[in-house]
Amino acid sequence: MAPPVRYMKNTKIVLEYDGTDFHGWQIQPEVRTIQGVLEETTSALLQQDITVNGCCRTDTGVHAFGFTGNFLADTRMEASQIQSALNSKLPEDIALKQVDFVSEQFHARYDCVARRYVYRITTAPTAVFRHYLSYTKYPLDVSSMERAAGLLVGENDFSSFAPAALDGDIPTVCNVLEAGFRVEGDVILFDIKANRFLHHMVRNIVGTLIDVGRGRMEPEQVEEILCKKDRRAAGPTAPACGLALEAVYYPVQE
Amino acid sequence: MAPPVRYMKNTKIVLEYDGTDFHGWQIQPEVRTIQGVLEETTSALLQQDITVNGCCRTDTGVHAFGFTGNFLADTRMEASQIQSALNSKLPEDIALKQVDFVSEQFHARYDCVARRYVYRITTAPTAVFRHYLSYTKYPLDVSSMERAAGLLVGENDFSSFAPAALDGDIPTVCNVLEAGFRVEGDVILFDIKANRFLHHMVRNIVGTLIDVGRGRMEPEQVEEILCKKDRRAAGPTAPACGLALEAVYYPVQE
Repeated sequence: MAPPVRYMKNTKIVLEYDGTDFHGWQIQPEVRTIQGVLEETTSALLQQDITVNGCCRTDTGVHAFGFTGNFLADTRMEASQIQSALNSKLPEDIALKQVDFVSEQFHARYDCVARRYVYRITTAPTAVFRHYLSYTKYPLDVSSMERAAGLLVGENDFSSFAPAALDGDIPTVCNVLEAGFRVEGDVILFDIKANRFLHHMVRNIVGTLIDVGRGRMEPEQVEEILCKKDRRAAGPTAPACGLALEAVYYPVQE
Repeated sequence: MAPPVRYMKNTKIVLEYDGTDFHGWQIQPEVRTIQGVLEETTSALLQQDITVNGCCRTDTGVHAFGFTGNFLADTRMEASQIQSALNSKLPEDIALKQVDFVSEQFHARYDCVARRYVYRITTAPTAVFRHYLSYTKYPLDVSSMERAAGLLVGENDFSSFAPAALDGDIPTVCNVLEAGFRVEGDVILFDIKANRFLHHMVRNIVGTLIDVGRGRMEPEQVEEILCKKDRRAAGPTAPACGLALEAVYYPVQE
């Protein structure tokens, strides 16, 4: 008897999610996670066990506009059909922005060459966007923060901005490709792109840059902090809600 | 015995609120309203019965960035103290952006000379800002919508954009000072400023302009709709969540 015909597709997905009511990306028992909800919904739609590879993890309360994943599925549905079917079944805090069939070699995590995060700060009391902005009551000097951010660009050891208890096997050198601020109305946005990020790295950087903006630290001290390779040298961890994964980059020939 | 010394202050407040979990501005029994929460919190803080005059009403689910109100209070607190005390006691979906003591003649509703609303539309699936954007699955031709919006500017009878059952005593002529679109990323923003608005007027205008953008109606038909003075001539009422009161205007010599 001939084996059943299979239509294996490597499916690349780009999704937006509101991290407020999730315990982060990664699947965990008993709690609501993006990966958990996505795998459950996709498995039910396609009537098979689906495992979604994510480009990275995000923490509780962190949002994403361009999170990328991929999964293998045996299906005859078109990519656009999968997108609209999943969007109609997913809860409203997850939206699939793009679905494409890609080469079977593509892997959302291993192939990723860079990620870009944006951290949103407001110094004005806020209600409407409170889950997407981090409020600080101190006036901030954005030009000092911009000078300090510039000192982070390049290949550096980011141990000082990693969790104190980071596993010794994890490399701590990251190549920061861009880091800078822009102001839109009451909102100060910090934009950072790097080949890789350590856990809590963006939030630890932002906490430190807010210290600079408040005048508690000189912009140039950021270089000393990098050199110390000691978490205690840097500022506090900024709240999760201000952080969003904006975009993920792959080589053009994916 | 001398009467007790009183320190009556006319207090002008500018507030931002997330309308998602409110039954609109106006106080009503049994339901959560912005006016209700504000009066309760302010009365408790100042230990007296406070009535807040609002610049207008907003419906369930409609947001505000620059809603203005005023109240009379017998207090020796400074305006900035009232602001920070109220912000620490108010729920997180209301934020006081400004508090000032103004002349006793000022009234947030009667003195208001113009209001500005922004309606936010997205044609891409959205998760993060879903409570602040209205999603439409149709591609929209913004230049047609812009042409149609231009035809609304000036003094016109807006009966066609008012509720069918509008009370006959309410004047229906409004002076639209500005009306236009701008695009920011995936979001199409409709900005409209007028001396006054009828109930549901912005949402009925937007529903009609979306019909124009979808190609179901020519931009020039907006003039015919105005002339008909009949609600049935216009398009559907767009969802509340896309709408926000952006700013309220008073004469300079308030």
